[in-house]
Amino acid sequence: MVERRSFLLGLGLAAVAGGAVVDSEADAAPVDSQPGTFQLGGRRIRFVDLTHELTDQFNFAGSKRIVIDPIVGSGFAAGMNLNRLLLVEHTGTHIDAPRHFARQGASLGEIPLSDLIVPLAVIDLRARAAADPDVALMPDDILRWERAHGRLPEGCCVAINTGADPVADMREPKSPPVRRSAPGFSLEAAQMLAEARSVKSIAVDSMTLDRGSNVPAYPVHQFWLSSGRWGVEGITNLAAVPPAGAVLIVGAAPVRDATGFPVRLVALF
Amino acid sequence: MVERRSFLLGLGLAAVAGGAVVDSEADAAPVDSQPGTFQLGGRRIRFVDLTHELTDQFNFAGSKRIVIDPIVGSGFAAGMNLNRLLLVEHTGTHIDAPRHFARQGASLGEIPLSDLIVPLAVIDLRARAAADPDVALMPDDILRWERAHGRLPEGCCVAINTGADPVADMREPKSPPVRRSAPGFSLEAAQMLAEARSVKSIAVDSMTLDRGSNVPAYPVHQFWLSSGRWGVEGITNLAAVPPAGAVLIVGAAPVRDATGFPVRLVALF
Repeated sequence: MVERRSFLLGLGLAAVAGGAVVDSEADAAPVDSQPGTFQLGGRRIRFVDLTHELTDQFNFAGSKRIVIDPIVGSGFAAGMNLNRLLLVEHTGTHIDAPRHFARQGASLGEIPLSDLIVPLAVIDLRARAAADPDVALMPDDILRWERAHGRLPEGCCVAINTGADPVADMREPKSPPVRRSAPGFSLEAAQMLAEARSVKSIAVDSMTLDRGSNVPAYPVHQFWLSSGRWGVEGITNLAAVPPAGAVLIVGAAPVRDATGFPVRLVALF
Repeated sequence: MVERRSFLLGLGLAAVAGGAVVDSEADAAPVDSQPGTFQLGGRRIRFVDLTHELTDQFNFAGSKRIVIDPIVGSGFAAGMNLNRLLLVEHTGTHIDAPRHFARQGASLGEIPLSDLIVPLAVIDLRARAAADPDVALMPDDILRWERAHGRLPEGCCVAINTGADPVADMREPKSPPVRRSAPGFSLEAAQMLAEARSVKSIAVDSMTLDRGSNVPAYPVHQFWLSSGRWGVEGITNLAAVPPAGAVLIVGAAPVRDATGFPVRLVALF
């Protein structure tokens, strides 16, 4: 605590001692799994939230990934509440920018909005994942999706729905705390999506693009991100989205030099 | 520096000494001011980015608002880059949640996506702002907009385009560093939008909902946010959006207990 207060004071800010305001007792709120609608130019568009609430449940023991520190400043007399966040970029539902695995790769600030609004293809792996907690998307899964829905759209995001629930996993942490089984993409599938299709991004409802047994070698992270493409980890609520025909909007603040950042994910259809 | 390293080590992470990777020499990249398009259900939709790149230009002298600290961990051998951010919530283009001025108000994690997808009304104040750098939206400005475009839509966001450029202001900081003139909303206009209309949010291209001369009393912040409504500061590129008929999507990560957070703002039309 002494170190923390000194640190904040060193930045010209006074922290309230012991002031984390996150209520670690309460579980993250479930996202609204039902589509809402809005009108645009006389047409009704449906939307779904694909984002987990970001809470300190995402902290690891001994390795904080989010801390909220109240700041008391000149606005306090007027009723202002204001916090400083200490945030590991890759926490909660978040984007992986190319920079995450390529030193010269694009950071979050360099990804134009046109690359963050993409067709969304959802591949359902829940049946296999129920039997294999380390399930990986394989090229055959992609071909099966295409037989039902046609060729993957140009520049799309391919999301896998494995039924993974990282919030539930963190509520009942396994020992050892880092799981060595988790759903993800196989390198073969990632190579097919990049080279035989023109896919721009991949998304997974677990917290790793690579299946758990491939951590920490990270072959998919290395291949996919260093190719200039981006990924999303911790996407949720995919069962509320049609497998084909939706558009994904990745609400990622353009933070210069960031390798990732928590996002709001919106599906439109 | 000693304090910072101790702090990070205390959280179980090792920082690279002197490791801020933000390039403070380069200006924030201008957003792409031209609309892009995407297809949804056979229809072409235009989109515009209303977000400033978030850089350390947003830091104040003696009061850092964003710091990026590299973390060296187990993934480093595989080429992983990963940072811890130290981030004041209200930095760059960002949302103000009700909690910012109401202790029991909704935090960012409590704002459902349905409240973040809203009709967008843009009121142009650039002519008056050119003569008065402390210009405020007044009830007459709202009535003038409604004579041209009809009554403000239910649940909309009212954004004012004053021509303010906070990035340019930070590049050539005034003395004293906190400007006492900045465009914003008048309390009278905010009351009209809440009580005589059903407006959900307000947005400004300066960095304060209240005009500069009303800081630090913050009458609009106090009234608007404590009523349960939200605001956006640092919106940009409003000249690329039609004054009526667009939809605003606020890409705000749902951070529990946060009073604000950097966002990606998307206009659809």
